[in-house]
Amino acid sequence: MFDERVNRVLKKMEERGLEQMLISDPNSIFYLTGRWILPNERLLALYLNRNGGHKLFVNRLFKVDGEIGIEKVWFSDTDPGCEIIASFTDHDKPLGIDKKMAARFLLELMELGAGSSYKNGSECVDSARRVKDEDEKAKMIRASQVNDQAMARFRGLIREGVTEMEVAAGMNAIYKELGTQGASFGPIVSFGANAAEGHHKPDGTVLKPGDCVLFDVGCKLDDYCSDMTRTFFYQTVNDRQREVYEVVKRANLAAQAAMKPGMRFCDIDKVARDVITEAGYGPYFTHRLGHCIGIEVHDAGDVSATNKDVVEEGMIFSCEPGVYLPGEFGVRIEDLMLITRDGAVSLNKDSKELEILS
Amino acid sequence: MFDERVNRVLKKMEERGLEQMLISDPNSIFYLTGRWILPNERLLALYLNRNGGHKLFVNRLFKVDGEIGIEKVWFSDTDPGCEIIASFTDHDKPLGIDKKMAARFLLELMELGAGSSYKNGSECVDSARRVKDEDEKAKMIRASQVNDQAMARFRGLIREGVTEMEVAAGMNAIYKELGTQGASFGPIVSFGANAAEGHHKPDGTVLKPGDCVLFDVGCKLDDYCSDMTRTFFYQTVNDRQREVYEVVKRANLAAQAAMKPGMRFCDIDKVARDVITEAGYGPYFTHRLGHCIGIEVHDAGDVSATNKDVVEEGMIFSCEPGVYLPGEFGVRIEDLMLITRDGAVSLNKDSKELEILS
Repeated sequence: MFDERVNRVLKKMEERGLEQMLISDPNSIFYLTGRWILPNERLLALYLNRNGGHKLFVNRLFKVDGEIGIEKVWFSDTDPGCEIIASFTDHDKPLGIDKKMAARFLLELMELGAGSSYKNGSECVDSARRVKDEDEKAKMIRASQVNDQAMARFRGLIREGVTEMEVAAGMNAIYKELGTQGASFGPIVSFGANAAEGHHKPDGTVLKPGDCVLFDVGCKLDDYCSDMTRTFFYQTVNDRQREVYEVVKRANLAAQAAMKPGMRFCDIDKVARDVITEAGYGPYFTHRLGHCIGIEVHDAGDVSATNKDVVEEGMIFSCEPGVYLPGEFGVRIEDLMLITRDGAVSLNKDSKELEILS
Repeated sequence: MFDERVNRVLKKMEERGLEQMLISDPNSIFYLTGRWILPNERLLALYLNRNGGHKLFVNRLFKVDGEIGIEKVWFSDTDPGCEIIASFTDHDKPLGIDKKMAARFLLELMELGAGSSYKNGSECVDSARRVKDEDEKAKMIRASQVNDQAMARFRGLIREGVTEMEVAAGMNAIYKELGTQGASFGPIVSFGANAAEGHHKPDGTVLKPGDCVLFDVGCKLDDYCSDMTRTFFYQTVNDRQREVYEVVKRANLAAQAAMKPGMRFCDIDKVARDVITEAGYGPYFTHRLGHCIGIEVHDAGDVSATNKDVVEEGMIFSCEPGVYLPGEFGVRIEDLMLITRDGAVSLNKDSKELEILS
């Protein structure tokens, strides 16, 4: 499985004319080796070369159990890590670098002349990670199934006088009870006008009748992420809230129905955006339609007006249109979508009908 | 306060012959502006120029409330962030870069010719952050006081049949009850032979009589970190455990007594290491003596054999000698030390006498 993944990255390197590349992102290294190594401020790099001789450069402080099919080059805190790497790279060829490598390592590798030039080669591994293999699909499906189970229970956290923070704490506890590795990101719980803010963090806001209740939540299971948003109403819903809710739901469903391999990400974004614009709420849909997801909640690649890349079978990304009316309320409805041979399926089965909690 | 901090960084830039610098680390930006902006994969940079015209480049998605004494340059997801930055930098002068800037931004800035060359200028801000001002000292002292209170309660988590994971969960709950922002790093709880492993994660290991019990724990309070280690014994202690414990304690105390401004970090490491080596356990003290700490648990700078930098009044770092006997047990005793005019004081007052828990 890991060999296949490495080969896919090597093929992408070939397409881009890169013979060698250094990958430093622990998520990508996990993808290619099945081993979690979290180096914090320390150096960690996987070197891939189309002529073979791949190497994993890793500090002795970390455990890398068993065979990974790639030679391990160990060093310690007092060894010159970048010099060791540069002694293996081909100085006469361009060197691909993944997008997350820290400047302190990149600048030192440049000083050492590790390559003839340096290119952001992230897409070689990011585009491989974007198309899920069977093992990954199974894990993503399972993570979203458990997220559906969690969402069913989260409704029960809503009661008179509860605060956003209390609900978020309850969600974290439920994710633990369900046997997950915990939340894949800090649960977003927004009541009323807070739901109209981008990136609102759960605070001491107390729930009031007539509030919208926005839950944007996900868990990590077997190292893969889920992510879903539902918006409810507490005790009552007014006409404007109902109208906005139905517009967002239509946008969500229209985009899902349109998705298929061969379409561009920007075209999918447009389907949802057009529904909202036609209903007169265009200026209030203030973000991209979605983002790729897998080992990370935000894998590289987004469903946005500027992304002209073409969608492929096996990709998984979020479909999350929203309308945010500052000072009033916000509605977002999000599912994870798996692109299939001739369409797409939602990994989330939780109901999207307008729901009043009491 | 923030003006003073910026001026300290500008002075360090002058010492290093740097006229301009980009800082991307959210911790450093918090240090210099008092604002937490966590951009994840998005671009965030603070531009400092010795001739003035400092700017904070920040995505509209994030909130930066109030005046920060530095002009904010806002951009959105569809704007070319690096081009905007490069339109302000001096292309004919070297550009300092902090150590954490992600390669995707650095490589793009290089393509745009944002500077005449690129230097790792992290030490300009890291060395400023290393010497705490009065506000920071007060917060660090308070965080360690609360960590002492927590450690007093952590002893009560030890009981027959308890697992490391259960103790760690109890610690997190106690940190919350004490009103902290939570643990500053995942609590390390190691029983018996697990304490001899570097970077052991709490697992299902059940406590046994005769085990050592190692707690390496810290909390975050008012955005500053504490960090302390104590090693206890459960029900009984044997002669070898007692001997090792006393050696480590002597090393801890000897290093603390020796610390003063003007000494080099490596000399402090040597004081502790010599005590352990003379007792015959040198090969089992497998890590550096300590690390700087502040906004981050691991601030830049360590107390190690290779660090020839000189210690200054106002620095805070850990003093954490240890002896690890593989397959048997491990002992580490750690305090945070504040360097004063003519010596050092421990921020931790928790007892270091050998203690048997029952």
